[in-house]
Amino acid sequence: MASVVTGDGTRIDDGATVGYDYCDDPGPTVLGDDSVVRHGSIVYGDVEAGDEFVTGHGVLVREDSTFGDDVVVGTDTVVDGRVTVGSHVSVQTGVYVPPETTVGDNVFLGPRAVLTNDAYPVRGTTELEGPTIEDGVSVGANATILPGVTVGEGSFVAAGAVVDRNVPPDTLAMGVPVEFGPLPEPLQEGNAIA
Amino acid sequence: MASVVTGDGTRIDDGATVGYDYCDDPGPTVLGDDSVVRHGSIVYGDVEAGDEFVTGHGVLVREDSTFGDDVVVGTDTVVDGRVTVGSHVSVQTGVYVPPETTVGDNVFLGPRAVLTNDAYPVRGTTELEGPTIEDGVSVGANATILPGVTVGEGSFVAAGAVVDRNVPPDTLAMGVPVEFGPLPEPLQEGNAIA
Amino acid sequence: MASVVTGDGTRIDDGATVGYDYCDDPGPTVLGDDSVVRHGSIVYGDVEAGDEFVTGHGVLVREDSTFGDDVVVGTDTVVDGRVTVGSHVSVQTGVYVPPETTVGDNVFLGPRAVLTNDAYPVRGTTELEGPTIEDGVSVGANATILPGVTVGEGSFVAAGAVVDRNVPPDTLAMGVPVEFGPLPEPLQEGNAIA
Repeated sequence: MASVVTGDGTRIDDGATVGYDYCDDPGPTVLGDDSVVRHGSIVYGDVEAGDEFVTGHGVLVREDSTFGDDVVVGTDTVVDGRVTVGSHVSVQTGVYVPPETTVGDNVFLGPRAVLTNDAYPVRGTTELEGPTIEDGVSVGANATILPGVTVGEGSFVAAGAVVDRNVPPDTLAMGVPVEFGPLPEPLQEGNAIA
Repeated sequence: MASVVTGDGTRIDDGATVGYDYCDDPGPTVLGDDSVVRHGSIVYGDVEAGDEFVTGHGVLVREDSTFGDDVVVGTDTVVDGRVTVGSHVSVQTGVYVPPETTVGDNVFLGPRAVLTNDAYPVRGTTELEGPTIEDGVSVGANATILPGVTVGEGSFVAAGAVVDRNVPPDTLAMGVPVEFGPLPEPLQEGNAIA
Repeated sequence: MASVVTGDGTRIDDGATVGYDYCDDPGPTVLGDDSVVRHGSIVYGDVEAGDEFVTGHGVLVREDSTFGDDVVVGTDTVVDGRVTVGSHVSVQTGVYVPPETTVGDNVFLGPRAVLTNDAYPVRGTTELEGPTIEDGVSVGANATILPGVTVGEGSFVAAGAVVDRNVPPDTLAMGVPVEFGPLPEPLQEGNAIA
């Protein structure tokens, strides 16, 4: 096992695996204060999280990923390595976050949202390129974000949308194929996690 | 661990966790006769199920949830707490059922169906409001049901549909955005699980 | 436990379950050379895989399933039994493959793709009929493939598509409802996994 460094008040459940040996010589797993890794979740070596990093069950967080403070990673979510996540982020149940993804601060990723990083799987020779989710973005349940797409600051991706191009800031993105519109009034009230 | 009360003929696999301590003083987990909780699944305290409650693997059932008789909860499904489910219900693989959801009798929830309960995540101050799935409803694979929506008795939600408004009884709901139509003949043959 | 037969260089993690007793008298689980089953994954008895069968975490592979050589099964994917998979196949994270599915050689199934096998769940008396995914097919992230559908050789199903009818060979299938078009040039470069 990789070495594990945890802050004050941090709890790792029995049946959780922190510091999984994904390679011959993994670096440490570092978790800040007041963090919780629940039963059935796996965190690889070479992961660094701030304070209040809280997981559900059955979560997988792979190597070379970093998290700010106050991040919730919901049950069955997979953070598939080489991912950067900011602070005050809520990732709901069953989200997929592929390698080379960047997530800002104050972001919400709804249940079963799927982010992708491979435009021409198997066939092409393009590099993997995950999405960029800017500060204050909400992504609805079961939405799909295509490789390399940037979702602009404060925007809202509706449930079930398939987002195949960049979303401007403060925009509502919805549908298949995706269409853009102004944010409805209830979504303009603020975008910071309380 | 919470106390666990099980009926005759009920089996809890090695590697399953029943009565997970989700709080300081959880109530019991009660499972009726002839139930099965398979390896890798977790059932919290304060869950009560009738007879023939059968799970796949990797299932999570959180607190304050109740189930009637003859309920199957498929592999990797998450019942996220404060959920009421009737009898003769088949929940397939990888379904997400959020808090404050009500599911009737004789209901089928297809693989990876996603139910939601938060219309304005992060931004608003609305209460969480899950969907209501009435008796005899079938929800197709990978469909998404939005917060507060009622799917009326005997209706059928097609695979991949995104349901953002109430569905009348005995209706076919399909597409993105969802459209309503009459039930095709093969779907009128009956809606009770044999 | 069912008996387990493994080739040279094959590794089964602590915390993985190979040869799960799904019935009273299961046949063996056979894995070829240089295979890996990672922590948290479950492989039933009566499963036979060739060389280089590699799983992520939290995978479930049920009985009466066969795999060729060089098959990756991503984290949280469920292969739900009675499934035939060819060689050089990449199944990404969280894919659902139902019973009675056939997958050819050189196939890619993207993250959270959902295959289905039951056209009239609960209501009708039709037999279960999974999809047929022919050689060289790629299925995009979060796509849904309906029961009995054949996706023709070399075709590409776009992310989020809901495929309710057969896809001809060398075709791009996209949208809800699905529409067909020619393969864009970058997808014509070849369809073999290197």
